[in-house]
Formats: sequence, C-alpha cells, structure tokens
Amino acid sequence: MTNITLDEARAQLMSLQRKMAAYNHAVGLIYYDGCTYAPKNTAENRAVTMSILSEEIYRQSTSEETFELLEFLDANSEALSADEKRMVYLLLKDIRDMKKIPADEYIAYQELLIRSDDIWHKAKENSDFELFRPYLEQIFETHKKFAKYIEPEKDPFDHWLNVYEEGLDTETCDRFFEKLRGGIVPLLKRIQEKPQVDDSIRFGHFAPEKQEELAYLLMKKIGLDLGHVGLATTEHPFTTSFGSHLDERITTHYYEDDFACSMFSVIHEGGHALYDTGSDDELAFTVLDGGVSMGVHESQSRFYENIIGRSKAFCRMIFPELARIIPEQMEGRDAMDLYRGINKVQPSLIRTEADELTYSLHIMIRYELEKRVMHDELEVRDLPSEWNRLYKEYLGVDVPDDKNGVLQDCHWGNGSIGYFPSYALGNAYGAQFLAKMKESVDVDACIEAGDFGPVNEWNREHIWKHGCRFKPTELLERVFEAEFDPQYYIDYLERKYSEIYGL
Amino acid sequence: MTNITLDEARAQLMSLQRKMAAYNHAVGLIYYDGCTYAPKNTAENRAVTMSILSEEIYRQSTSEETFELLEFLDANSEALSADEKRMVYLLLKDIRDMKKIPADEYIAYQELLIRSDDIWHKAKENSDFELFRPYLEQIFETHKKFAKYIEPEKDPFDHWLNVYEEGLDTETCDRFFEKLRGGIVPLLKRIQEKPQVDDSIRFGHFAPEKQEELAYLLMKKIGLDLGHVGLATTEHPFTTSFGSHLDERITTHYYEDDFACSMFSVIHEGGHALYDTGSDDELAFTVLDGGVSMGVHESQSRFYENIIGRSKAFCRMIFPELARIIPEQMEGRDAMDLYRGINKVQPSLIRTEADELTYSLHIMIRYELEKRVMHDELEVRDLPSEWNRLYKEYLGVDVPDDKNGVLQDCHWGNGSIGYFPSYALGNAYGAQFLAKMKESVDVDACIEAGDFGPVNEWNREHIWKHGCRFKPTELLERVFEAEFDPQYYIDYLERKYSEIYGL
Repeated sequence: MTNITLDEARAQLMSLQRKMAAYNHAVGLIYYDGCTYAPKNTAENRAVTMSILSEEIYRQSTSEETFELLEFLDANSEALSADEKRMVYLLLKDIRDMKKIPADEYIAYQELLIRSDDIWHKAKENSDFELFRPYLEQIFETHKKFAKYIEPEKDPFDHWLNVYEEGLDTETCDRFFEKLRGGIVPLLKRIQEKPQVDDSIRFGHFAPEKQEELAYLLMKKIGLDLGHVGLATTEHPFTTSFGSHLDERITTHYYEDDFACSMFSVIHEGGHALYDTGSDDELAFTVLDGGVSMGVHESQSRFYENIIGRSKAFCRMIFPELARIIPEQMEGRDAMDLYRGINKVQPSLIRTEADELTYSLHIMIRYELEKRVMHDELEVRDLPSEWNRLYKEYLGVDVPDDKNGVLQDCHWGNGSIGYFPSYALGNAYGAQFLAKMKESVDVDACIEAGDFGPVNEWNREHIWKHGCRFKPTELLERVFEAEFDPQYYIDYLERKYSEIYGL
Repeated sequence: MTNITLDEARAQLMSLQRKMAAYNHAVGLIYYDGCTYAPKNTAENRAVTMSILSEEIYRQSTSEETFELLEFLDANSEALSADEKRMVYLLLKDIRDMKKIPADEYIAYQELLIRSDDIWHKAKENSDFELFRPYLEQIFETHKKFAKYIEPEKDPFDHWLNVYEEGLDTETCDRFFEKLRGGIVPLLKRIQEKPQVDDSIRFGHFAPEKQEELAYLLMKKIGLDLGHVGLATTEHPFTTSFGSHLDERITTHYYEDDFACSMFSVIHEGGHALYDTGSDDELAFTVLDGGVSMGVHESQSRFYENIIGRSKAFCRMIFPELARIIPEQMEGRDAMDLYRGINKVQPSLIRTEADELTYSLHIMIRYELEKRVMHDELEVRDLPSEWNRLYKEYLGVDVPDDKNGVLQDCHWGNGSIGYFPSYALGNAYGAQFLAKMKESVDVDACIEAGDFGPVNEWNREHIWKHGCRFKPTELLERVFEAEFDPQYYIDYLERKYSEIYGL
C-alpha cells in the first residue's frame, strides 16, 4: 500500500463498506424472501445462489487487498476520525477471524444454513426432530470447530456468546441468570398462590385482515416511518434491514384465535426497527449502521413490547382503537381488563408466547442446553428429552411433542448458537433504561396520550443514533451513568406483578 | 489458457453460468421487491445496491479470465456438446458486446434505470410527464450511444429490436405491421358498423380477496406448479425468475371494478411462467434456461391469455367457477355472455386493457414513436403530443392525460426500448402455433374439459423444454415446419370476430 494516499485509502474504506452492504442486501433479501413470499419448493434454488454469493463475500472480504487496506489504515489511525477508527477496528477483527476459517468450510456452512432453515420448517411442521437432527448436529459441530479456529485458547461457547454480546462469557451469564432466577422464582411462587387473572379478552376469532389493520396501526403509533419500514408475515417473526437502515422490514404471524400474539410481536419487531432506523443517516452503508449488539437490540424490542406495550398507560391508549377494530371482542370490557389479560402469568410451552415474568426461564433452559452441547456434556440426539425434563423442572409444564418443544425456535436452524441470552439481558437493560429515562421524561403520561415523541427522542439521542460507534458495555455505561445492574429488572417485575396480583 | 484441460474449462463454463445466475437472482429479486413489497421510500437505497452489484456483474463477466475461457472453448468447439456450443456462442456474443461499453457508462446506466423506474411510478401517479422526461431522455440517449458502441455500422434501433428478437429489423417490422394493419383496420371497421356486444358481465365491485382466490384458481387450472411459482401484486404486472426456472414469480394488479383485468393478466403472466418453468431441468443455472426471445415469450403468454383464455371452450370451463366465487355477478348469465363480454372490441386508451383485435394498434403506436426518437426524428419532449395524435389517428380516441397516455407503460422507464414489437409478433406466432397444435390435439375439447395436459405437453415438447437451445427463427421453423406467416393470425381474428359480431 505504498502507492496510495491516506485520503484514497479512506475513500476505499467507504467503498468497501458500501460493497459489503450491497452483498448483505442481496443475501438478506433472498433469506427474507424465503421466509415470507417464496413458493414452498424453492429452497434448493436459493441454496445454490446463497452458496455462490457467500463465496463471493468471503473471497472479497478476506482478500489480501482488503486486508492490506485495513492494516494501512490501522497503522495510520491517528489521522482517522473516531468513526473511521471504529470501522477499521470492526472490519479488521472480522477479517482476522474470517481468515482463520478455511474458505471451503465457510461456504459449505453457509449452504448448510440455508438447507437447515428449510428443513427446520418442515421438521417443526411435522414435529419430526429426527429430520432436523443431522443438520443441527452439523451446526453445533461447526460452531465448535469455527470457535477453535478463531480463538483456540477460549471456551468455544464463550466465543459465540461474545459474538452476539461483546464481552459476555459463560461465567457472567451463569451469575446473571442465577440472580434473575433468584428474583423470578419466588415471585412466581407468590403469584401462583393468588387467584388467577382473567385473560379471556385476548381469545376469540380474529380475521387476519383485522389483525393486519391493527399491525399497521401499531407501527404508526409507536412511531415507525412506513415509507422505510415494511411488514410481512412469516412463521417465526424477525426484523431485518437491506443495505442500510433506510430499508427495514418487520414480520409477524397471525394466530386467528388470539389477537395479542401478533399485536405484541409487531411491537417487539417494531422496537428492533425503531432502533435500526434511528441510526444517524451518515452511518448508512457502513458497518456502524444499525444496532450494536443483540442484547442492546433486544433491550429495545422488549422495551417497546413489554415495558411500554404491556403498561397500563399503553392499554388505556390502545383500548379505544381495539374497540373500533374488533368491537365485539371489546364489548363490555375496559382498558384494565386488557392490562390484566395481557399480563397474566402462567408457565407455558412456547417462548414467544410466554408472559413477561416467566419468559426468562425459557431462555435459561435454552442457555443451559446450548452450553452443555457446546461443552460436549450433552448429545444433540438427547436435546428433546433434556428439553422436556427442564421444562418440567423450571416451568412445571409437560411438553406434548417436539413441535411445541425443542423444535419451536428458528435460532438453532439458522445457526444462532449463543444468541438466546441476549433476550434476557435485553429485558434487564430495558428496565435500567426506563429508570434513567424517567429522570427526564414522564413516560406514562406520554404513552397514555399516544405521544411516543419524547420516549423515542430519548432513545434516539442516547442509544439509536450512535449505531455501532461504541462497544455495548461502553454504550450502556454512558447511558446508565453507572454499572449494569439486573436488580432494576427484578424490582420492576416485583412492582408490576405485586399490583396486578395484589401480593 | 494453456495450463487448463478441456474438461476443466467445461467445468468452469458451468461455474461461470451458476455465478451469473446467482447475481441475476440477487438483482432480479431486488427489482421485484421494489415493484411489490418494498416500503415506498426505499428506492434510493436499492439504487446504491444495484449500482454496486451491476458493477460486480460487469467486472466479472467482462474479465480477461472469462474472455479467455470462452475463447479457449470456442477454439475447441468440435469437442463440445450442442448445448455447450450454444452457451459459448451466447456468452461470447454478450461479452464482446459488453466490452465495447465503457464500464463507468454501463454502471451509471444501471443506476439510472433503478431511479427512472421509481420516478416513472411517481410521474404516472401524478400524470406528470415533465418529472419523467429527463430520465427518459437519458434512456433514449444511452440506447443510441450503446448501440453505436456495439454495432457502429448498424441502425441503432435495429440493434435494439435485434436484442429482444434475434434477426428482427426495422424493415421486417414495418412490413409485418403493414400486413397486420391491412388485416385489422378493415375488420375493425366492419365490426364498428355492427351492434355492440354487452360486456357488463365484467363490471361491478370485486374485493381483492375474491380476485386473489380466482387468481390462484387460474394458476392451478392452466397447470402452473404453485410449489415453484408465486403470485404478488404490483402496478404493472410482469413475470420473473430467480436464479433458474425453479423459482418463478408472476404478478398482477386487482382493479376493484373489473374482475377480468386481473383474470387475464394472471393467465398472461401464467403463460410466461409456463414457458420458463417448462425448460428441461438440466438447463437450470445456465444461459440456456428459460424463454429464448421476447417474441416467443409473448407468443406463449398471449396464447394462454387470448387464444386459450378468451376462447368459447375456456369460458364454458371457467363459468361455473366464477359463479361460485362471485355468484351475484354471474346471476342470470351464462358462459356465452362471458365469452362475448370479454371479447368486446372497442378502441381504447390503455394497452394492457385493450381487446385482442385493437391490441396490435397500441403496439404500432409505440413502435412508431420509438423508431422516430431513435432516428432523431422526434424529441422526447414531443412524445406526449405525438402519442395523443396517433391515438386519435389509429384508434379514434382522445387521450385525457399522460397517466392514461404516454406514461401508462413501465417499459421505457425500465429501459426496454425495442421490446414492444414482441407483443405483436407473439400474437402472430401464437396463431400459427395453434394451427399446428390442432393437427394433433383437440384443443377446444381439452380446454372445455379443464384438462390442460395435452395442450401444455405439446407446448413443452415443441417449445418450452428447449429453453434457448435454438435461435428463435430456427425454433419457429422447427415447430411450424414452414416459414412464419402472419396470415394465420389475421385469419384467426377474422374467424373469431365474424362469429361474435355476425359479420
């Protein structure tokens, strides 16, 4: 790189990121299409394209040319802006990691993921774990192998935890979950001794068109810009962006017997989309665009879904709209019936439908199982029986089949091992954000008035606009002006459920 | 290429085509997403990605490495299979053409197309030709310039006609249209002297959900495999495939006051999809996959839309289904009312809604205007007034605004100059295919019985399965066992309308 000026190198840094964004746009859209609109027998076709494009991405992003450019910039980092420094750091870390994985193994793995996601859909549909097992075994094996390539000295599970949440390891997770469990389990016990609340308000028959009307209304209410954020339906809802935060898509699933499922999944995915689309526009098409970690991402999605969406203020605001869209269902009921109905605590089978309190217990089970498989203490073939045993132990429920058990989540099928703890961390971050936000914003009054402006502005200023400029731990400390402390979350749950259940 | 064996080169030929298919999958899907599901303010974002991917495609497909590979195979063509020879021929022709266009101009043009397509949508919505004009001027100028780069000795319009239909030129077109006009204009005059048929059967109010039900029914009836063919809605319906013929998508547009619009657009696009998906599976991911030319493609779409879809036999078959899906509308009516209603001849403003007889007159107007702009005999700014003048002259109708006039079609906005004649050629090819098919298949009896098998099998054996193995002219002669003769089409129209209007 002796024949290049620093300014040329800085321009190349931007082109490199735009090119990566373009490829990510392409593969992201192909994946999204497969989950939403694609005819059902087209997965093999997508697998061919994805394996070729993954190879291109791998080849280009690990090329000597790219590596030299980044090392040149790194060597001249004193002349770079703070944003540029962070870009170079993240890109160099990626390329160094990537270069440790043999190209053919990386490509084969990308192809495997496309197929396994498709197989997972079929396996879930038929409650057939054996169909999915060989794919899941390969996915876990690949995770062990890749972790060893990249960080041979580290525990492989720690490596993957760290991928989704910089700085996270098994020890921290164990401690966090222990504290959480210590707060949740006794609270749950006290709740179970009280009379159960009535949640019949959410059940009935709701046409998908009505639910779609509600979905778009919710998207507008929470402040999403529908010119840049789309909605589609899928099996397991997720959020994705294409190329930059200027084109964001959320997905939902309509259950005809329960309007609240899609309602809260739209608010959840909407929270992800608010975070992504809130990045400063100058970050578009760079690696600093969008959310910084899965934990912080989930803190935003679960903040909107639970802390806001399942609050009394939100119920008061949304009730008249529900009474307009599904009038028969709301007949003779009021906002407080809605509030109690959507906050009923009941240990159950499906994570995505779990109440706010027991949700983290679902996460602990997955964390426990992943950890044991990654540590060679459990075989993939034994996952269904261990899953069922832990559901009985942690939640007291009997799992009737793998469709409602070990096959319920898409994460393992799409290779997200180590992702689950982010959900629980996100819950806890969110409660601490709320405490901080309340120092300057009258959150309840704003939400009840249907004015998301001040809440969104606070999040934008403190969290969203920064994209990936700061490490998650750094970002959290800047916002909290203190250490992260899960006690905020335990206190929040205690307060909320004490009132609902009259503890 | 001295250090490569022929077998290695043959394998590389296949990889090259798979890679091209993967990129085409990506850019095709991004375009499709923009026309169907994308949030409305995301076009700029797509433009960034498209310009980068186009640059990649250009760079890779014109690389010296690719060129040398193809020249090596070309030099050893006696050892290649017939399919391989044709692949090498088509790829070499493309690369030689591409290499004549400067890379920066090619990329800028791809970016222009993305923007211009978006601007066309907005311009049409607001009936604002001036908004679209600068883009259209650039598109025409680029077509003149690129044609001169590629075939400097040739008339630029001839070059583009030839792109969509190998062997076609202005002289052939002029002659073809003159013959067609000589058949259609007197027939139209005789029809206009007769009492008009009643087409009230198609007008009313039809919920999009009912029309969607009908659309899926039609797709199944004509024999599409819904596991490989999807349906979406868009402004201007089109058909596309992703990567190979194993993933095909058709689109439609529901007009709430006229169910026949979407009905026939679904059959039309379904015809394209039947053709594409009928390619031999071994052609998947090669340049021989899918339809051979726009004219032959339109022959299939218009064969299913008009020759089959607007036949008495089809009306008899589909009437009971319509009576089930939209019972109020079919009350007191029968299959013959449907037949007459959908075959009403009436000169009108919108090409895609034109009846089968006057349709070709719409094409002649576009052909005439494109030819004059390409020959520098007409300025883009004068297109609206010339459009309106020709509609008055050819069809006797007054154009109220550009939305219903010069802005109605997406073709110019997406850079398809020279495409329109394919529609008229397709009509004429289709009539000659029908004559040939009837020598061995009782077409009317099959359609009336709802059994598309023998008709589809004939098309598959004679046309579809070959993909792009033969030049269009060669394919036509193989099927016709004679020269192409537009008289078949004129005779078909004469027969059909004489009966309907009692001439």
